[in-house]
Amino acid sequence: MWDVAEKLKALLVFAEHRYYGDSLPFGEDSFKDAKHLNFLTSEQALADFAELIRHLKRTVPGADGQPVIAIGGSYGGVLAAWFRMKYPHLVVGALAASAPIWQFEELTPCGVFMKIVTEDFRKSGTKCSESILRSWGAINRLSNTGSGLPWLTRTFHLCTSLNSEDIQRLKDWISETWVNLAMVNYPYPANFLKPLPSWPVKVVCQYLTNPYMSDSLLVQNIYQALNVYYNYSGESRCNNISETTIGTLGSRVWGYQTCTEIILPFCTNGIDDMFEPRAWDLEKYSDDCYKQWGVRPRPSWITTVYGGKEIHSHSNIIFSNGDLDPWSGGGVTEDLSDTLVAVNIPEGAHHLDLRSSTDTDPPSLQLARSVEVRHMKQWISDFYGNYRKQP
Amino acid sequence: MWDVAEKLKALLVFAEHRYYGDSLPFGEDSFKDAKHLNFLTSEQALADFAELIRHLKRTVPGADGQPVIAIGGSYGGVLAAWFRMKYPHLVVGALAASAPIWQFEELTPCGVFMKIVTEDFRKSGTKCSESILRSWGAINRLSNTGSGLPWLTRTFHLCTSLNSEDIQRLKDWISETWVNLAMVNYPYPANFLKPLPSWPVKVVCQYLTNPYMSDSLLVQNIYQALNVYYNYSGESRCNNISETTIGTLGSRVWGYQTCTEIILPFCTNGIDDMFEPRAWDLEKYSDDCYKQWGVRPRPSWITTVYGGKEIHSHSNIIFSNGDLDPWSGGGVTEDLSDTLVAVNIPEGAHHLDLRSSTDTDPPSLQLARSVEVRHMKQWISDFYGNYRKQP
Repeated sequence: MWDVAEKLKALLVFAEHRYYGDSLPFGEDSFKDAKHLNFLTSEQALADFAELIRHLKRTVPGADGQPVIAIGGSYGGVLAAWFRMKYPHLVVGALAASAPIWQFEELTPCGVFMKIVTEDFRKSGTKCSESILRSWGAINRLSNTGSGLPWLTRTFHLCTSLNSEDIQRLKDWISETWVNLAMVNYPYPANFLKPLPSWPVKVVCQYLTNPYMSDSLLVQNIYQALNVYYNYSGESRCNNISETTIGTLGSRVWGYQTCTEIILPFCTNGIDDMFEPRAWDLEKYSDDCYKQWGVRPRPSWITTVYGGKEIHSHSNIIFSNGDLDPWSGGGVTEDLSDTLVAVNIPEGAHHLDLRSSTDTDPPSLQLARSVEVRHMKQWISDFYGNYRKQP
Repeated sequence: MWDVAEKLKALLVFAEHRYYGDSLPFGEDSFKDAKHLNFLTSEQALADFAELIRHLKRTVPGADGQPVIAIGGSYGGVLAAWFRMKYPHLVVGALAASAPIWQFEELTPCGVFMKIVTEDFRKSGTKCSESILRSWGAINRLSNTGSGLPWLTRTFHLCTSLNSEDIQRLKDWISETWVNLAMVNYPYPANFLKPLPSWPVKVVCQYLTNPYMSDSLLVQNIYQALNVYYNYSGESRCNNISETTIGTLGSRVWGYQTCTEIILPFCTNGIDDMFEPRAWDLEKYSDDCYKQWGVRPRPSWITTVYGGKEIHSHSNIIFSNGDLDPWSGGGVTEDLSDTLVAVNIPEGAHHLDLRSSTDTDPPSLQLARSVEVRHMKQWISDFYGNYRKQP
């Protein structure tokens, strides 16, 4: 956006989603209970954006009568796409970067996401994904020995001592780390979820070349690999298995959203992927939501309101995806019409195209960005064409 | 719908809008206060219809994979159009009959509605609209005399005695009657708001041919004219100025809707219309809403969410209107695109085309219905065309 705005004579506006950051409708009480969280829905967020656009057009000199483009990545990309679908009178088009609009209900098989994560690790080093696949058994066996739990606590440099009920959380924390690494597997040093070197999965995989060593050596290598993610800066003193990303991404409220509207079915089988097998269990998922928030998910609402795969009657949306990004599995990676277009970036991770351009950008990324800008220019010129025609 | 359903092999479904009829989310408490009425919005009503369609497709044998068409008249027509705009994946098109989607904010001049009412009366009898225009002064003058109030009470056969604060309500009741008569000015005897003869405005105007008689004679004629509406069946014993239509149209909840989302600006000037001059006064309107419901209107929300006049990116909506219908002023009476089409019925009143066909239907009405069915058939065949093409 920063690179292109001046060329397109654009005003950049970053809208904060309600219940995130400082946008708290009830201040400190906003997260208190389901009653206070009740106004946290994607529809309400889109309505905020609609009000904001009309407000800016009324109040910013020169803004009235100008075309608007919605841009977002990840959930923000999903919102950008949905906004164009629901408010086509307010935006001439949307760039939905790494937007998994089809990661709902049964639109995408639940195993695809972790399969892509696995594929990234498989391609990034010999025996890398096999090492991770075997590590779960190693952790399980070690956690069953008397000295195993303190040894695992020491080996992983954990801030608090593990007890046997923590083992699943430990493994979830490790799994989520591999997922995050796949998402931020950028071709240059970056600091999106964590400060990381270029192609961090490759760096991680340098520690994971031999799956067939002893359990303790394998787990020590897993720690070295995790350390790339958790301590690239060298400043971490211990690891907290409740945290996988820096604290500011609002993961708490996101939890509420994933318990109401945003139900993303995931599963693993340990065959097509490098994780312990786990089925998608909506009932358990729902019970967990009820315990935590007092609400139960409505897994088919999102497809009811936003159309699932039946979105061909809409127009002017670019769906960009990186092949390395696990979220691309639930994304739109083929053109749906002349104006609902897919832009695929073979070397791309999670919304790489929205990052500032660098000297090391692969040609596929440069091409993707130029295609995106070409579409935007087309939307703008169509807008002025239609505008002039009107009485 | 009944006439065409069999030919189109259609299932007819009548969905009841929440908070109307038996669809009360909190039973008897539903109208208690703004907190209980909080779930009464057009968006929620559309969401109900979306859930209903998906439910029927899942549960009615043979319904899955079939095209659906939204049909409605008046507010129901507005909802039909909005539903196609917001849920194009669930309905292949919409017939929006007499749907005043542009009777909001400043999309239509506030005086147009009453001007059309006036035009109907002007065309239906010599000096008819002039008689009505002069009647307001006659009522005002009579209400200022000592014997005027009981005389007016007797003359209008009112159920309860008028006092001087009731005069505005009396005039509002009379105005609303003229409006209703214009809406149901059908070419054959009908029973929509009230049982009425064919071309009821013409029948009314037979009593209103001389504006220049004495105040008392003029008012007596006004009573005779009103009586066509209130006592065509001959069963009415007295008139209640709080009621203009039969009791079942849910006018109470509609009042709440017009105090929150559905803000329809109306005004009169006594020059272009036959009514006493009254400006559109949002502030007073808002205060009245606050007094009655504890809420204040958001007059620009409807255009923000449904697009106002910027709806050209949608498709497959028929906007039908009768030239005699005051609501046609806020309707779409010109084609917006190849698939957003206007059907105008010169002899039509309020959603005449949705009524069963009769032997006395004017040719323009027959033509309108055949055009509507032709569009529906096109939507259906397009649906199956697209459907087969999909992988």
